[in-house]
Amino acid sequence: MADESQPPAPVDTSVRDRLTEWQAVLAPLDVPQIVDELGRTDSTDRALAFRVLSKDLALEVFEDLDPALQRELLEAMRDDATAELFEGLDPDDRAQLLEEMPAAVVARLLSGLSAHERSLTTTLMGYPPKSVGRRMSPEVVSVHAGATVGEALARIRRRGATAETIYLIPVVGTGRRVVGVVSLRRLFVTDDDTLVTEVMSDPVMVDARADQEIAARVVRDNGMLAVPVVDTEARLLGIFTVDDAMRVLERAETEDAALTGGSAPLRRPYLSVGLLGLVRARIAWLLVLVVAASLTVRVLDHFEATIEQVVTLALFVPLLIGTGGNAGAQAATTVVRAMAVGDVRPADWLRVIAREAITGMVLGLVLAAIGLAPAALFAGWEIALVLALSVVFVCTLATTMGALIPVIAARVGLDPAVVSAPFITTTVDATGLIIYFLVARAVLGL
Amino acid sequence: MADESQPPAPVDTSVRDRLTEWQAVLAPLDVPQIVDELGRTDSTDRALAFRVLSKDLALEVFEDLDPALQRELLEAMRDDATAELFEGLDPDDRAQLLEEMPAAVVARLLSGLSAHERSLTTTLMGYPPKSVGRRMSPEVVSVHAGATVGEALARIRRRGATAETIYLIPVVGTGRRVVGVVSLRRLFVTDDDTLVTEVMSDPVMVDARADQEIAARVVRDNGMLAVPVVDTEARLLGIFTVDDAMRVLERAETEDAALTGGSAPLRRPYLSVGLLGLVRARIAWLLVLVVAASLTVRVLDHFEATIEQVVTLALFVPLLIGTGGNAGAQAATTVVRAMAVGDVRPADWLRVIAREAITGMVLGLVLAAIGLAPAALFAGWEIALVLALSVVFVCTLATTMGALIPVIAARVGLDPAVVSAPFITTTVDATGLIIYFLVARAVLGL
Repeated sequence: MADESQPPAPVDTSVRDRLTEWQAVLAPLDVPQIVDELGRTDSTDRALAFRVLSKDLALEVFEDLDPALQRELLEAMRDDATAELFEGLDPDDRAQLLEEMPAAVVARLLSGLSAHERSLTTTLMGYPPKSVGRRMSPEVVSVHAGATVGEALARIRRRGATAETIYLIPVVGTGRRVVGVVSLRRLFVTDDDTLVTEVMSDPVMVDARADQEIAARVVRDNGMLAVPVVDTEARLLGIFTVDDAMRVLERAETEDAALTGGSAPLRRPYLSVGLLGLVRARIAWLLVLVVAASLTVRVLDHFEATIEQVVTLALFVPLLIGTGGNAGAQAATTVVRAMAVGDVRPADWLRVIAREAITGMVLGLVLAAIGLAPAALFAGWEIALVLALSVVFVCTLATTMGALIPVIAARVGLDPAVVSAPFITTTVDATGLIIYFLVARAVLGL
Repeated sequence: MADESQPPAPVDTSVRDRLTEWQAVLAPLDVPQIVDELGRTDSTDRALAFRVLSKDLALEVFEDLDPALQRELLEAMRDDATAELFEGLDPDDRAQLLEEMPAAVVARLLSGLSAHERSLTTTLMGYPPKSVGRRMSPEVVSVHAGATVGEALARIRRRGATAETIYLIPVVGTGRRVVGVVSLRRLFVTDDDTLVTEVMSDPVMVDARADQEIAARVVRDNGMLAVPVVDTEARLLGIFTVDDAMRVLERAETEDAALTGGSAPLRRPYLSVGLLGLVRARIAWLLVLVVAASLTVRVLDHFEATIEQVVTLALFVPLLIGTGGNAGAQAATTVVRAMAVGDVRPADWLRVIAREAITGMVLGLVLAAIGLAPAALFAGWEIALVLALSVVFVCTLATTMGALIPVIAARVGLDPAVVSAPFITTTVDATGLIIYFLVARAVLGL
């Protein structure tokens, strides 16, 4: 056990080490001892020590601290320097070392902060980046389940000026647990004497650790003006409003659009980004794609003898692999979008791939049927047959890959949009060439 | 002048003809005569006749009709058959023949209809397809500019049950003209005796003929819960709410995503669309692209002699045009998105194209610098030089086209997303090949 008169050194050790040291120091102590220990620690260290407490213990300790120390602790946790410390923590450590903070402490910690300060402070709560917990507003007016509509309206009118929204009101039971939601409108058109619980509806809510995009979709899909944000015990932490939801969705769409084209998203309006910014957003992906595409050179090199024998085969290379690329891009954008809006879940992957494989084959057959005669006129029946067979195989391959690659990306935790059109095209190119030349050799007897 | 005792035959003539006939019949008449004429006409024809009246005349005539006839006229205009007649009108005729309907008549015509009925009925008002006039709700609570906050709240509480929203309240002056907007919240936290005009803000509103997507963006960009929909004289017609705005934007994004991949948008969730539906959404674009891509066959055919002399040139065709296609796709998706979110307006086209041309050149130079040595090792210095020069030209061309084509599409009234990635890729393919072989001939002295 550490010497209590000398808390762990605050310098030269990483946050992770300091947190585990504090865990060791505080583990054997009871609530009064911890309160005592916190009282004798400097302010940043106090925030660290407080964060290693388990959730229930944290609540008890916080309530036992004297008000001045409570305020000091809250200030330390709001401090830029503290936020930075926690920002530096790696996500696994964060998940392992930081338990959820008690809802009551969260509410007091976040109230009165600007959006920017809030976003800094929420890192120390352990909410992952892009989680709704980092974007919610703690300025929420809730009403108690025992209240009448008249009491609720009076409370809203009193508190409304500083709240983020007053149009959706969470109804809470004991310990800030959300038991329902009611719109201001519903309250407004109901008699004052009615109980709030009679007019509230079942609560739609989101966990503070949920992704902002998922929360935004909950808002959109339910046509809500706001959604309560809660902890794992359904205790009210804050509220996430429709205007934020729209902004989150817009940003997500912009990112997806950029990824679909194979570039990094621009973080600012197009015309305000410098030329170097445009180059930077694109060069990395473009290089990756060039390296991948250099596979086509190797494939063609391998079949160089075949090309020398029948140069006509080379004439159709861009047409054939271009068509494969287009069929693949169609499949990929459709599947990526279906995943983005939640129409397709990762568990549906087998069905999606089967559907796309068949669709690709049908598309290839249609193209082959339509193109056979013109191709024969231009290059003779044998070459036309090679093209017709190849286009069926290539289209089937392309749509299958177009479905498979986003599905795999999602499974390994990447944004499916990352691997859309340009990646499919490049992947299809090399494989398509192999198919084409193998078919050509077989049909032409080379 | 037509024989007044026998109005134009209601059968066997197109709506357009019947409307122009009515114009001729009614033109020389004054208000009492028109009222009289409408009284002696059957119900569908009455709706047609009413719609050819100029806006001011229509209001006077409507107000002079006796209440029973007003009701009959409104019913006729709400009728499925009438709606279908107007749906069949071509857009130019619609713009030419139908003036705006008076706001007071619109409000009465649309109230109490379901969303579906509303959408049918709004066609006869001349609102273009996808305009916000077709989607707005006429059930709007407005308050008069002379009211106090207390009076406004009482009115909202009375009318709130049937209104589409009560959170954004348009403030209207004489003749339903919108002079401001105020949130329920603002009213709610203000003293009852204050005048509404003291707390209202400047009205943000949209014209009923504006595109739904533009209206939705007004809602999103201003963080509004609803926006008043007005006629050209700023008279209140209805309201467009944030939940509809989110749905409109989602649909637009889904359409853009599909177009980006070169397919028609699916109108239903992916897994509920049959295989034939998937094929149908894609085959048309795929065929168009194949026909366009057949240009590459002609280009290569033209350079066949060159290929026969230096077969190595053929090995780099997919790599080179693939890279051009990727650079073009990056530019196109970036520009299309910037136009979709309003960061770039059609008037900026020259700046956009200049920026993209330079970006493409820089990207090409970087790729050339990085690729020169490996290419030389694989295929010798001369071929490497051909490739390096070509990649600079091709990338510059690709990004320029990637910017130019969406800009042109927007100018001719197409959705810029229609001509994104696959179209750029296909266009770049043929031109890129020409550049490549011309450079090769020049450098290799063929």
